[in-house]
Amino acid sequence: MKQIPSNPLNDLNFSGGPGVLPKIVLQQVQESIQAVPGVGLSILGISHRSDWFAAVVAELENNIRQLLQLPPSYHVLFLQGGATQQFSMVPMTLLAGKTAAAQYLHTGYWSGKPLPEARRVGPVDVAWSGAACGFRRLPSDDELHLDPQAPYLHYVSNETVEGLQFHRVVGRDDVPRVCDMSSDFLSAPGDYERFSMIYAHAQKNVGPAGVTVVVVKDALLKDAPEDLPGFLDYRAQIQAHSIFNTPPVFAIYVVLLVTRWLLNEVGGLAAMDALNTQKAKALYQALDDSDGFYPARAALQDRSKMNVAFNLPTPELESAFLAAALDAGFSGLGGHRSVGGIRASLYNGLGLGAVEKLVGFMEDFRKRYR
Amino acid sequence: MKQIPSNPLNDLNFSGGPGVLPKIVLQQVQESIQAVPGVGLSILGISHRSDWFAAVVAELENNIRQLLQLPPSYHVLFLQGGATQQFSMVPMTLLAGKTAAAQYLHTGYWSGKPLPEARRVGPVDVAWSGAACGFRRLPSDDELHLDPQAPYLHYVSNETVEGLQFHRVVGRDDVPRVCDMSSDFLSAPGDYERFSMIYAHAQKNVGPAGVTVVVVKDALLKDAPEDLPGFLDYRAQIQAHSIFNTPPVFAIYVVLLVTRWLLNEVGGLAAMDALNTQKAKALYQALDDSDGFYPARAALQDRSKMNVAFNLPTPELESAFLAAALDAGFSGLGGHRSVGGIRASLYNGLGLGAVEKLVGFMEDFRKRYR
Repeated sequence: MKQIPSNPLNDLNFSGGPGVLPKIVLQQVQESIQAVPGVGLSILGISHRSDWFAAVVAELENNIRQLLQLPPSYHVLFLQGGATQQFSMVPMTLLAGKTAAAQYLHTGYWSGKPLPEARRVGPVDVAWSGAACGFRRLPSDDELHLDPQAPYLHYVSNETVEGLQFHRVVGRDDVPRVCDMSSDFLSAPGDYERFSMIYAHAQKNVGPAGVTVVVVKDALLKDAPEDLPGFLDYRAQIQAHSIFNTPPVFAIYVVLLVTRWLLNEVGGLAAMDALNTQKAKALYQALDDSDGFYPARAALQDRSKMNVAFNLPTPELESAFLAAALDAGFSGLGGHRSVGGIRASLYNGLGLGAVEKLVGFMEDFRKRYR
Repeated sequence: MKQIPSNPLNDLNFSGGPGVLPKIVLQQVQESIQAVPGVGLSILGISHRSDWFAAVVAELENNIRQLLQLPPSYHVLFLQGGATQQFSMVPMTLLAGKTAAAQYLHTGYWSGKPLPEARRVGPVDVAWSGAACGFRRLPSDDELHLDPQAPYLHYVSNETVEGLQFHRVVGRDDVPRVCDMSSDFLSAPGDYERFSMIYAHAQKNVGPAGVTVVVVKDALLKDAPEDLPGFLDYRAQIQAHSIFNTPPVFAIYVVLLVTRWLLNEVGGLAAMDALNTQKAKALYQALDDSDGFYPARAALQDRSKMNVAFNLPTPELESAFLAAALDAGFSGLGGHRSVGGIRASLYNGLGLGAVEKLVGFMEDFRKRYR
């Protein structure tokens, strides 16, 4: 279980998720609890059937299409149930009744999670697994056994737990790519048109827990089954513009505020990526300059810009590090319970100043304990 | 589409849902966006795996058990997907593979919604339908054709759209009762031990949209299927204390604040019901004293304390009424799009003063337009 230090500034939160949100967004959210500007009513008491909320959803759909540079042939949905619900919805929609296996890359903790859910529905082929190497690296292109007949290829763009990130699009262009981008969504520009579906829960880079963004190409759904429960049917959700049933109004509104911040304050995904790259570079540099005191977990070429996972020479030193970090006001630095160690998550909302403070703290700690 | 008037006091919100929350809760929520008291970090950046959040869930489970006076043999869950997800989870859990039909009462808009979802899974028998009478009343006990072999009886305790409410527990004690209490949950004391399952989305009486409370008797799940997707499996959710995957942290925290308010400020469900009864009485009195200008929709004996649905002599007068109400700062008074007319929702968070103001407004309007 994780301890939380007091830090009402919310500026040193390295949590793996729910993650830190930009300060200006937190201020706007706080204001909206009393009254949404231009509306004059608490965000918690506004009907999801109001004109205002329809405009929120429409603006947010457009902002996401604009940020990802996607044409109108992509639908943008805001669903509940987290990435976990997508682990089931994807095969229910694309794998049910198929004889060819869907291909999955197993590159870490999170990409392992959808496997049992997909296997309930149809045949699954793991096109590559990093289990044997302890998920310390990602595959090269020639290691992938890609099947041109597969209904889709599923992979996770950024492994939150192990700190691994694909820095390229993988897979075949003639097989639909379905990608879980939960932990690096809207963190950098990319060739998003090469994906047929992208999903991401909000609580890393784009909002609070409780809403999941799904971006899906219209053509992917042409043969989707007709007999799914309504809330698990992408087409029913598309038709309703995400208001098939009462949506998580608050969470969706916060995501809208984050996209406005990305567009108007940050200046788009290229600018966001420049800042994220700077943050990651500063922290990896500190690891590389530590004479092996802070070994990085991930192979050099696959290091994540979002989650920097590392160790210390002994478990005792790791505990001492986490305790000292808590005392210094840093939160969320404990590694995921499945791997332990240390993990610093550098999501969009985290400032460069926080990373610089952490680097300073780490250098002090190393001098004291090495 | 509904218009929203400006009213930053949030005290005249008669919305059918998301509904008004108590003023003191809104203040606490606002504070928590900056920093949760005693924690010192934004509620939007706190890990769901923290000790603190585990304590939130445990306290909330206990508060709900205490308010409903239920023994520990009832589990309390906080799920996503709204009541809509329960429309599917209930039959997936209790009806799959059964030959005896589950019985459903069809008493209005919302109790009609789960029927197609249940029929996807197994045989369904509608034990009574109010469709022929336009859903203006509820059944008497001798009108119900109850089957002792039914896997369960499903009904909706309060029909939000039509303003109908059961003022008694219906069904057989030897058939599990599954009840959708979305719109009157925690509004009054009752014999809740007579139910095997109760579910309620939060956005009427207990919190924001995005979380659903499920109360389920352990024994009901003993034969549940083993092959459900994890997030749709009540037992997996029970085992994880609602943290099977990332839960809607914010929405759950708000529901905790509402239950604390119910226990510590209001003084429990009997006191809440006394206030709710007073609010409903004042408004129905205004309808009954209006010489037929404001005819109530529901039959006298089935009138809901939560949703007061009524009409005016003509559709034109109804439009004029809604426009004038908006100008006067009242929000959410438009009837549900399926029935039109006027609906005043009197959820827990709405004060008696708001109802008195509405009654005054209605009397003025009637004098001007009759």
